This record gives sequence, C-alpha cells and structure tokens, in this order.
Amino acid sequence: MGVKPSGMVTLLTDFGLKDPYVAMMKGVILSVNPTARIIDISHLVTTAGVAQAAQILYDTYPYFPEGTVHVAVVDPGVGTQRRPILAVARSHLFVGPDNGVLWPIIETCDEAEIIHLTEARYFLPHVSHTFHGRDIFAPVAGHLSQGVDPFDMGPVIYDPIHLKYPAPYQKEGSLYGQIVQVDHFGNLITNIRAEELQEFLKGSILLVRIGDLNIEGIEQTYAQTAAGEPLALFGSSGYLEIAVNRGRAVDRTGFDPAETIGREVSVSRTGADGRHS
Amino acid sequence: MGVKPSGMVTLLTDFGLKDPYVAMMKGVILSVNPTARIIDISHLVTTAGVAQAAQILYDTYPYFPEGTVHVAVVDPGVGTQRRPILAVARSHLFVGPDNGVLWPIIETCDEAEIIHLTEARYFLPHVSHTFHGRDIFAPVAGHLSQGVDPFDMGPVIYDPIHLKYPAPYQKEGSLYGQIVQVDHFGNLITNIRAEELQEFLKGSILLVRIGDLNIEGIEQTYAQTAAGEPLALFGSSGYLEIAVNRGRAVDRTGFDPAETIGREVSVSRTGADGRHS
Amino acid sequence: MGVKPSGMVTLLTDFGLKDPYVAMMKGVILSVNPTARIIDISHLVTTAGVAQAAQILYDTYPYFPEGTVHVAVVDPGVGTQRRPILAVARSHLFVGPDNGVLWPIIETCDEAEIIHLTEARYFLPHVSHTFHGRDIFAPVAGHLSQGVDPFDMGPVIYDPIHLKYPAPYQKEGSLYGQIVQVDHFGNLITNIRAEELQEFLKGSILLVRIGDLNIEGIEQTYAQTAAGEPLALFGSSGYLEIAVNRGRAVDRTGFDPAETIGREVSVSRTGADGRHS
Repeated sequence: MGVKPSGMVTLLTDFGLKDPYVAMMKGVILSVNPTARIIDISHLVTTAGVAQAAQILYDTYPYFPEGTVHVAVVDPGVGTQRRPILAVARSHLFVGPDNGVLWPIIETCDEAEIIHLTEARYFLPHVSHTFHGRDIFAPVAGHLSQGVDPFDMGPVIYDPIHLKYPAPYQKEGSLYGQIVQVDHFGNLITNIRAEELQEFLKGSILLVRIGDLNIEGIEQTYAQTAAGEPLALFGSSGYLEIAVNRGRAVDRTGFDPAETIGREVSVSRTGADGRHS
Repeated sequence: MGVKPSGMVTLLTDFGLKDPYVAMMKGVILSVNPTARIIDISHLVTTAGVAQAAQILYDTYPYFPEGTVHVAVVDPGVGTQRRPILAVARSHLFVGPDNGVLWPIIETCDEAEIIHLTEARYFLPHVSHTFHGRDIFAPVAGHLSQGVDPFDMGPVIYDPIHLKYPAPYQKEGSLYGQIVQVDHFGNLITNIRAEELQEFLKGSILLVRIGDLNIEGIEQTYAQTAAGEPLALFGSSGYLEIAVNRGRAVDRTGFDPAETIGREVSVSRTGADGRHS
Repeated sequence: MGVKPSGMVTLLTDFGLKDPYVAMMKGVILSVNPTARIIDISHLVTTAGVAQAAQILYDTYPYFPEGTVHVAVVDPGVGTQRRPILAVARSHLFVGPDNGVLWPIIETCDEAEIIHLTEARYFLPHVSHTFHGRDIFAPVAGHLSQGVDPFDMGPVIYDPIHLKYPAPYQKEGSLYGQIVQVDHFGNLITNIRAEELQEFLKGSILLVRIGDLNIEGIEQTYAQTAAGEPLALFGSSGYLEIAVNRGRAVDRTGFDPAETIGREVSVSRTGADGRHS
C-alpha cells in the first residue's frame, strides 16, 4: 500500500487513568521508536465497551494526519482465540483485537486491507495472556510508526468480526434511534446522523421524544435556548444530540443516568403551522 | 511584536477526559504543525467555570517557555456572537473565547495586544456551531506554533470582555476573601495573596476563620502540625491556603464540600501575647 | 556512571488531574530542556500512598528505554527535613523524596548509587516549602534529561530511607499475602509473585481465599471462566491476581471496596484428586 508514517500513534483503551497500564504501552512504543509522538484519545471507555470505542475511533481518526497509527485496546477476550489485527484504511493504520472495534472503519472503506498479526518478531519477547496492549499492539504500533510494512506482519484476512450495532429505522412515520453516548457535559448523543435526519424531515419541523423530554425544533448551538431549557442540535461529529443549555440533559430524561445508553429516541415531523403531524 | 514560537501548545478546557474532544483538538493542531509539542494543563475545569480557568491559566503559564501558545476553551457561549480572540502578552500567546478567560492576563499586562480572530484561512474549512475548540482555536494554535504572525489573524481590538471576580476587602479591622479553588488534596485556596496578607498583618499573628475552622498562625508546610490538624499557609502559587496535615480541609469546614467555592474567609490579627485584637 | 540520557522523563504523582500542578512541572522541565519527552505514569496514586507509588514505579520503569529519568513525587513530608534524592540504577535515573518511594529499586539493585540533591543551581531560583515537585524535582529531571552528570548534583549517600512493606509468609502449610492494589477493572493484585507461588505449590492445585471468595486452580486469562465467575491468575506484572470474568472482583469479597487494600489473601494446596490438603 505504501502508507507513509506520520510518526504519530494514538491510544484508545478502557484501562483507566489510575494504573500504569497505559504508561507501560507508551514505554514499549518508545523503546521501539524513540521518536514516536503518542496522543491519548481516551482511556475511559466503558469497561469492555467495544461498540463505544469503535464509535469514538471512527469519529476521531480523521482529525489526525494520514500515516498515523491508531491503537484501540478494548479487549475483554484477551488471551483467548480472538486474533490481533491491523487494518490499513484511508491511509491510516489501525491496530487492535478482532472483536469489532475496528469494524466501522473497515465497513465504510472499500479498499481496507486487514492483516492478522502473526509475526512474533514485532511483539515483545514474552507475550502475556492478559495484556496484549503492552505485549503485541504497542510494539507493533512502534514498528509501524517507523515504517515497517504492514504486510510483513502477517497474512491478509477477509473475515474480520463484524460489530453489530443498532441502526436507526423508520416505523409508522417516525424515525427511531438510540442514545449511544452520554458525554462529559451530560449531552445525549444519538446514532441518527444529520443527513439521515434531514432526509427524513424534508423541511418539516422536528419533534424529539426521549424519556420525559419533548423537544420541538432544532437549534444551532447550546446557548440558543434559555438556561435550563432542553434542546436538540447536531453535535460536532454530525449526530443528533440532546442537550440542556447550562445544564445536563442526562439528568432530565427521567431515566437512571447510568442506564441512559441504549435508550430509544423517537423523532417525528410537525408542520410549520405548529400542529404535530 | 515578533514573539518567537517555542513550538509548544498548552490546552486548558472543561471537556473532561472521557470523550474524544481533546484528542480531536490535538489531531487538528498536529495536522497543521506535526512538530508541535502539546501539553495538557487541565481538562477538568468545572463546566463553564470561566473564572476558575482564568485563574489556572494565570497561575500556570509563567512556568512555560516564552513563545508558548496557550489555548483556553471554557466556552459556554460557543456559536453565539462572542468573539474568538488571541492575546499577545509577556511574550506568550493566548487563544480562547472573549468571555473573560484571558482577562487576568490582559489586565495585568500593559503591553497586551488583543486580536479578534477573523481570518478563516487559519480555521478548519468547516466551522461547526458547537466546537470552536476544534474548528477555530486548535488550528489557530497550530499556525501560531509554527510562527504565523498573530497580527495576520484579524484586527486588533480594545474592548475585550472583563472578568468580574471578587477581590479581597477590609472591613472593621478584618480582611475578607473567598475560597476560589478546592484542590485534589482538599486544600482550600483563597484569593488572598501573600503580599496583601503580610501588608495587612504587619507582623501580628494571623487568625483565620472559615466555616467551623479557626486557625491561628501561619505555617510553612503541611507537615508542621499534628496529623489531622488544620493549618494556614501560603500555597505554591502564592495565595493563602487552608489545609489539614494528612487530611482534607474541605471536609472540615462544616460546608457542603460541593458548595465550598465562593465561601467567605475572614482574616484578623491577634497580638503576639495571644489575645485576639 | 555515564548513563546516556534517552531524553525521556516519566512522571508519577498523587497530584490528581484537576489542578495545574502536573502542568507546572512539565513547564519547568520543558523550560530547562525544550526537547524532553514527558510521559505520565499516573497522577492518581492514593494521596500520600508512598508504598503504592513505589510498587507502580518498580513495575513500570523497565518498559522505558535506558537513560530515562523517572520522577516520583508522592511527598507528604514536603518542606520538612526529608531529603530530595536521585538514584542511578540499572541505567535509569530516579528522582524523588527520600521517603521510601525509590526503595524497591534501590533494594534490588546492588550497584544503585544514591545522591542527595543539594546543588541549588539545578533547582528553580525560588524553592517553595510546599511544591518540591515543581521547584526541585522537575528542574533536576530537566537537567538530567539533557545529560548533566548526576554526581554533580550533590553528595553520594548510603542511608536512604527503607520502605517497609509486608512480604508474603508461610504458616502451617499456607502462604499468606496481601492485596496491594485494586486496579481500574476491580481486579485484586496481591504481593505474591508467580515464582514464589509456583515454588510453594510444587505442582499441586492452588486454593485461594480472600474474604468471601474461594477459588480453586489458576487460569491463564480473564475469559477462561464463565461470565461473573471469580478466578485467580498471574497478572501482567507477575503477581497473583484475583479477577471476575466480565465483573469486578473488588465487589465480590464482602469487604468494603474502599478498605480492600491491605486485606489478607491465603493460598493453600489441594491435591490433584480434588481433596483439600
């Protein structure tokens, strides 16, 4: 393929910030390539939250230069038969377990090539059963960031694990989606993309229902309603988002905040005259 | 002005550590300037805590080399009419919304020059309504860190928003201040500067009252009282601070820990003979 | 000694992630050595958790290149008579307070040399009583990362403070250890090393008791029991670890999760026939 390395490596894990696990990965990367630039995406992905990590990676990687190596280690099956893989897609390199975490990138890129990481000379000399982030993915990322050819690292495979995630659907004139993330501000991020929603609305006014909240119309930014008022907008990654100006939407739905992810959002159309269709 | 860039960019936000927002900013900076050195100041500023961020930035920037670009994005008014600005002060560059977050730096530097960021060629091609940290401030910082002239980025302005924050005052022989920060150790940091306090005390012994706590005298360091004993000292940024040796002062005032910021601190003088004046 | 600097500096503190303390240290390091590469190990060590930090440092430093400077600032005695020290051991450099945080490294390295940091020309011009991380350890680390000779920084000493930590012991045919860390996943990490345990077991089957949990046998990885089942394994740093597949062991012992560190773990042997010996 000939992806020219940017020298940058991003890290996305569910390892948290307290333990030295992430630092061990960084030490390994820098031991292979002392000039690597390492950037944290997040280490606070929900434990074993493969779908959440997959979404974050898919939304974030395009902001990095081509040739960047992205390492995603949310890996509840570490040490079992699940394969360590590498995907080459859109001139970026993606490393992680074959459990779906790379699937949105693979699925949306026709030219993606996937390699089963089998060449142990790119791993640490001793590979533990419990920490492939340190022992396989970090050293592989170090070597890739230095320009090692991805296709030297193992055979090409054609059967990566697919990630099953809920797609929005229409039923009886409404569009149904899900809350897929609650961000630091308590904003509720759905899986409904702006283009899909606008196609559905065709110029009519949106009416969103999520738990106790009923919101009419779509705003451009958070400060466009009164303080404390809920609103709908398109978030910065292009998805329908429910927020509260100077407040936390997650505390306003009537759901248990800890059980908000996965909740249904319904969108219907209402006429410009204010009558709900 | 001719500020020679250090190649370093600091980031200070209220974005938290869970979501990929900070990583997106870093990716944008590194896409503009692949050699930029990015250092996090904090991403756990209280949501919309403009005054808190302003204080942290003011206390922290002097420890960085001249020519560093400091990006402060605590921006509840994102997407409204509030201006994105850049301040050149004391050979550092400061980028953020015009909402007061840069005001302590501007206020204390006679030669500060302020630029309204209007030149869209230094922004991302598409500017969202909700994430100017990524779409305006990050690319501007990337360009500044490479040596782009600040004065090419928009017109100089003379009316930046002032930050209103409470100043200590004297009344009936006492000095009154506020708790402005509770740090990770539960220490209570006030807005009373060491010089102001020493001017007030003129050699007499200090008596501090904050909620249930009454503290006499000022110590040099935390371990100078018995374990569990409250004490007053000048913290590492030069403000009067209330601490508990091997404990958390925030749990000892009688106030709700979540409502400690903004609480009044009173300082009075007591004679060397131990009688309170 | 002639340790060739790698240009890397790691940081390990109990300063938390909210306040600008860590960023101030980074600014100071970069002001001394603008090309230093700074890597965070953790800033969420338990407040004043010297033994915890000592363990993390000991487990983590070997993953970094030789010539790396490791700064450990868990320093409840800051500003008192405790000495600031530097240890040169196994071609790494270690900087921190003389309170035991460097002891496991010193204890296990016969050739370790320890220097009392007394040469104030390597400190900030003004040294506060409360923040030696910023005023002493950070600038020293910056100078070391640039190749300043450690032995120029003060006299060699031979009486560093020893860290007292509990060692596993055998009694009446059982091996007793302690929980020394609860990680982000709720796994319970003990102080029993794999080699010591295998020496004890001599091929018989392990039986672990910790609080309400009784576990028989040792697994290779987390996903080898049914979801929700507790298991014992050797963790990635080589210690006996108690985990729950897709769950949190810390919530399964019957102990208060906040009081799990320090709890006793007992290991006994059971025959291959299933009868407990």
